[in-house]
Amino acid sequence: MNNMNNMNNMNNIIKRYTSKIFLFTLLLVLSGSKIQDEGMFPLSEIPGLNLKEAGLKISVKEIYNPDGVSLVDALVKVGGCTGSFVSEDGLILTNHHCSFDYVAAASTVENNYLENGFIADGKEAEIPAKGLTCRITVGYRDVSDEVLSAAEGKEGAERINAINKARRALVEEAQKEAGIKAEVSEMFIGKTYVLFKYTELKDVRLVYVPARAIGEFGGEADNWVWPRHTGDFSFLRAYVAPDGSSRSYDKSNVPYTPKKYLEVNPDGVKENDFVFVLGYPGITYRNLPSEFVKLHRDARLPYTQQLFAAIIAEFENLSAQNPEWQLKLDPVIKTLANTEKNFRGKIIGFNKIDIVGQKQREEVEMQKLADSDPKLKAKYSGLLDKITQLYKPLYKTSSLTLFDIVLSRFLTSFRLADLMSNYMYSKTQPDEKRSDLFKEKNRGLLLKQIDDIFSSYIPEADLVLFKVAVADALKRNEFSDVKFLQRFSKGKHSPSEVEAFFRNVLDKSQITTKEGFLKMMETPAAEFATGDDPLLALFTELDEEFSEFSSLSKEVEGNLNPLLADYVDLKKLYLHRSFIPDANSTLRLTYGYIKGYVPADATYYKPVSTLTGVIEKGLSGSADYKLLPILKELWQKKDFGRYLDKDLGDLPVGILYNLDTTGGNSGSPVLDAMGRLIGLNFDRAFGATINDYAWSEDYSRSIGVDIRYVLWNLEKVGGATHLLKELGVD
Amino acid sequence: MNNMNNMNNMNNIIKRYTSKIFLFTLLLVLSGSKIQDEGMFPLSEIPGLNLKEAGLKISVKEIYNPDGVSLVDALVKVGGCTGSFVSEDGLILTNHHCSFDYVAAASTVENNYLENGFIADGKEAEIPAKGLTCRITVGYRDVSDEVLSAAEGKEGAERINAINKARRALVEEAQKEAGIKAEVSEMFIGKTYVLFKYTELKDVRLVYVPARAIGEFGGEADNWVWPRHTGDFSFLRAYVAPDGSSRSYDKSNVPYTPKKYLEVNPDGVKENDFVFVLGYPGITYRNLPSEFVKLHRDARLPYTQQLFAAIIAEFENLSAQNPEWQLKLDPVIKTLANTEKNFRGKIIGFNKIDIVGQKQREEVEMQKLADSDPKLKAKYSGLLDKITQLYKPLYKTSSLTLFDIVLSRFLTSFRLADLMSNYMYSKTQPDEKRSDLFKEKNRGLLLKQIDDIFSSYIPEADLVLFKVAVADALKRNEFSDVKFLQRFSKGKHSPSEVEAFFRNVLDKSQITTKEGFLKMMETPAAEFATGDDPLLALFTELDEEFSEFSSLSKEVEGNLNPLLADYVDLKKLYLHRSFIPDANSTLRLTYGYIKGYVPADATYYKPVSTLTGVIEKGLSGSADYKLLPILKELWQKKDFGRYLDKDLGDLPVGILYNLDTTGGNSGSPVLDAMGRLIGLNFDRAFGATINDYAWSEDYSRSIGVDIRYVLWNLEKVGGATHLLKELGVD
Repeated sequence: MNNMNNMNNMNNIIKRYTSKIFLFTLLLVLSGSKIQDEGMFPLSEIPGLNLKEAGLKISVKEIYNPDGVSLVDALVKVGGCTGSFVSEDGLILTNHHCSFDYVAAASTVENNYLENGFIADGKEAEIPAKGLTCRITVGYRDVSDEVLSAAEGKEGAERINAINKARRALVEEAQKEAGIKAEVSEMFIGKTYVLFKYTELKDVRLVYVPARAIGEFGGEADNWVWPRHTGDFSFLRAYVAPDGSSRSYDKSNVPYTPKKYLEVNPDGVKENDFVFVLGYPGITYRNLPSEFVKLHRDARLPYTQQLFAAIIAEFENLSAQNPEWQLKLDPVIKTLANTEKNFRGKIIGFNKIDIVGQKQREEVEMQKLADSDPKLKAKYSGLLDKITQLYKPLYKTSSLTLFDIVLSRFLTSFRLADLMSNYMYSKTQPDEKRSDLFKEKNRGLLLKQIDDIFSSYIPEADLVLFKVAVADALKRNEFSDVKFLQRFSKGKHSPSEVEAFFRNVLDKSQITTKEGFLKMMETPAAEFATGDDPLLALFTELDEEFSEFSSLSKEVEGNLNPLLADYVDLKKLYLHRSFIPDANSTLRLTYGYIKGYVPADATYYKPVSTLTGVIEKGLSGSADYKLLPILKELWQKKDFGRYLDKDLGDLPVGILYNLDTTGGNSGSPVLDAMGRLIGLNFDRAFGATINDYAWSEDYSRSIGVDIRYVLWNLEKVGGATHLLKELGVD
Repeated sequence: MNNMNNMNNMNNIIKRYTSKIFLFTLLLVLSGSKIQDEGMFPLSEIPGLNLKEAGLKISVKEIYNPDGVSLVDALVKVGGCTGSFVSEDGLILTNHHCSFDYVAAASTVENNYLENGFIADGKEAEIPAKGLTCRITVGYRDVSDEVLSAAEGKEGAERINAINKARRALVEEAQKEAGIKAEVSEMFIGKTYVLFKYTELKDVRLVYVPARAIGEFGGEADNWVWPRHTGDFSFLRAYVAPDGSSRSYDKSNVPYTPKKYLEVNPDGVKENDFVFVLGYPGITYRNLPSEFVKLHRDARLPYTQQLFAAIIAEFENLSAQNPEWQLKLDPVIKTLANTEKNFRGKIIGFNKIDIVGQKQREEVEMQKLADSDPKLKAKYSGLLDKITQLYKPLYKTSSLTLFDIVLSRFLTSFRLADLMSNYMYSKTQPDEKRSDLFKEKNRGLLLKQIDDIFSSYIPEADLVLFKVAVADALKRNEFSDVKFLQRFSKGKHSPSEVEAFFRNVLDKSQITTKEGFLKMMETPAAEFATGDDPLLALFTELDEEFSEFSSLSKEVEGNLNPLLADYVDLKKLYLHRSFIPDANSTLRLTYGYIKGYVPADATYYKPVSTLTGVIEKGLSGSADYKLLPILKELWQKKDFGRYLDKDLGDLPVGILYNLDTTGGNSGSPVLDAMGRLIGLNFDRAFGATINDYAWSEDYSRSIGVDIRYVLWNLEKVGGATHLLKELGVD
């Protein structure tokens, strides 16, 4: 799954990588078949698409109409996911994994909604999804000129700072409009910037959440895998003030009336049917040069995958020793495993498909074109060489940066050190200048946060993580002149010696106990020195040294910025056509067909999975496939109601289609030729993880929940007939 | 793979379990579909089979003709595997994994035939497969009366001893015939015994062995898995004295002329074609009562699988630390993993298919039938209850026995202790009464064996194995009154304490160094006392206590013996028909069709895999899929020669068929409707591991190498045109 929720605690740099290669017709790929065009079309491109010919039976204007109401108006950005309005009363359908954190937060030991599911009998029983906000795209405007004029003549970090400053100013200006949130999205690096305006809804409530054994069926085993049998859906509802304005939870709030909501087609679809998906795909890298892809293939992906795999192994080891640790480490393992498995899929993909080589060959031709014409030569001379040279230092810093992130975010003790440093700095500032958390009025919040961090603190986990990350770094060339690691260079570098070193740091630190931490907070700022505490000293040393690597990366980013714009321009000239921007969390359309595929030799995957498959997996005895007794009962009685697929003789559960999606498309509606809702996107197949770099009909397949499984759950499992009625299904 | 070779070091009790469930059409299975009949027909049943109707295009007499020459005369028992003669010059085709150990033994660092393959340019270049003998079935005779009359009136262990004594006497009598080896095989326990006579060939040589990357392609990852891409074949040749008599390797020996050899069909087969397999399947449990199956399901399988998995994890950990350990532990891990994966498949199978419940329901009906008729009642009253009661104590002893085997066989230090004890006992005997290894003339052999054991000794491996097995046993109820474990009962039972205990034993023992071992051998027998050395003392204690459990098992076996005969008789009455005996390493025929299947929801496996699949897997970058450059080159050139399958547009590699095979069928010829060789059996699919207990068309599939892949290898990879000519393929 594009598990955006599990990723919350992680740095963007990791987050960006969360997405999904199918195995493929290797004959085609290895014989040098052309990488096909991607298909995440931005709103501006939709009117130009010939969707009728592809199979659409309504007009394109019914999908997107900037001058009226259309299907895109039913789309919602739900946290890092996508959702859609499915009733005039603000009912939202999205994935189970998209509301996971909010359901967990609303759960108690007595009312464990996460485990048992949550069904509100009526609107009055709906409960707040605390902290969740929804955004609706209400307009956009090209602001490239404003952004780029601000950056003109600037280089390196200074250029990035100028661009970001201009983006912030445009956002602030736009947000002066009441109820509007704005973002300036980079469509083509250094070239195209678009201001998107959103309405933000701040009172979102839980309506129907299936039991975890349905919503998360398949767990880690099935993540990024087809055939799939996960009921990854949940219903939310957006509320607003009685006057229609957006406000936070209030008892007197009323359901939001969307401009548009989707009609549900309870009859579903069949193999080869035309379908399309609207949503907010997060990030792809298809317009970037070969050197960027090479950097990922040779440095970032293998380092991350190996380090995460090693940490996961150690954490699983700890989990097996102690049930309390297991509870705390389980979500961390899930987060790491989601990225580790995705990257593993990408690495296998790169072994099989020579994307870098194909791009390099294309770039040689692009540069030849540029060099063949005096006017082009003046502009693009040596472009590819310059780009390649600029990427070089990143081969080193990409691993260093990830090392820094892993220690800073996953070592609870380092999070404590970070918090203490920031707190002490805030004490040197007047209250009004402090960041929110450190303002006097928020003292309770700060203490709560300290409590939370200590409750998640497992010294043994910090020890093994430090040991694994450092012992691994000591073996790698790119870490050879990292000062932070020099202390281990004189023979003290075996994993157990590294662990012993860190154990000593933790033992001698005052801030690794809550009492000690609270006591140190009372130290006057003037008397505070990080050097007095070994943990604070170590954290500060890491922070200071590694911020240099971030600065270096930013400098490179700034120098690449105009060159990557030139790269896209030259590529357009070379290809004699324009192409669409990479995914960047803005609203997109992708279309195609319900289609099976050949994932490997002698194997064919059909495009619809069934309830029988749920039972099969459930009987395997694996913990990932917990089978609810009611599912088995209903299956044994063949009680599929109107949702039976007569051709299959079974209840459809999952659907597969050759559409172009990535992380952020979680929860996207899958729509049929009539624009009716027939499924809910939530994942890609393992072989499709590589399509963040290059999409192909051969291996790119996305996975959804069939709407018939959603409706059957409401009716037969949850008995939520009132919701079926609200959805217009009788 | 039915990896008989890796099993060589293991006790029969483990060996018996080496075999392979397909996933299946669950609807059928769970709705209570009847378990179908098995299909491993003994020679005596072949004339009665309607094979013509099934698709055979030759007469059944051409397969089996006790009065003349037929296809079964081309069959050979190769160690624990099957092979077949494929030329008039004694050329034998069998699996790569069947000759693995002999190829390894013939390899040196300079001439690593195992890694690089071995191709003899002509007969003079063929090298001995030292220690390998081949057997050809030449006749059989029912000896049930002789065996059972000897056992009449006897119970318990005494009955087993009487049966075994009678079997040995029959064997000795038969072996008086020159060149004949004999065995009395138990067809139905306590009921039917058949004397089989074999010609034994003792000079077997290596002719063609593919490189390990072809012969073992897929390694542990693909073991018990379809789709498969392993070139699991090798050619051997049997030699005899110039007068035709069997004798050990001698330069002047000449190729053996078989009574019959198989014709090769280089055009192969297609989906749905009729095929049959002849071979020596090892063991199945289908005629045994529900209580036996329950014993396996609830005790033997889970205990073995869990213990082996734990040992494998520890050994892999050690391997990763030290390349020298890795070399030594790798074959042990392979052996354990082969059984562990098989048992895991069976456990999953039992979770999905209620074989025990189905048998129990059948037995209730059988007992009802017996109780309904006074004559039957007199004979079978309370039969099922008696059987159930007898099995009860085995729930305990099955785990205890396996624990004993694991320690005695896998602890190198215990093997040293065992050898020393036996040696010291032999010294109390006159030379002629000693077992061969301890006779004076074999002193060199003994010293070589001691050398071998010490060269495989890794104290760290012994420590973790002892720790894992003992710490695990201490948690299990069935071990609660084992005296051997009492020493750990007083708080000294944590894994690290167990390890510390055993470390102390090894440290203080004299026989854990070669010098110490050789020195102790000089101790006069009269002065030798196992109590003087902590390792010898510990081993002796284990040996003495656990031999009690073996005695108990034998007692139960003896008491069950006549009851299991009654069970089969009553079952025949109940079913109104006879049925065939379980596999017991005697010659059998099974037939069916080249067929794909549905292993899981939304998935279909085709029955023929291709060279493209080899390349796909090879490019994945996994160590299990080492890809030889020549394969990639030939694939890129599409140089498939006459072996191209035009429908597939590819070279066939593996074939799948719904035949009934088990361990021991490795190397069996797969024959077409004309009785021509079209493949070489070597494995079953994962879902088919359960078919040792119950066969089903839904999930039982066996895996072979397509003969076209074998021939293509000879021609294109090995350039062995002389062999193609010998095979009659031009």
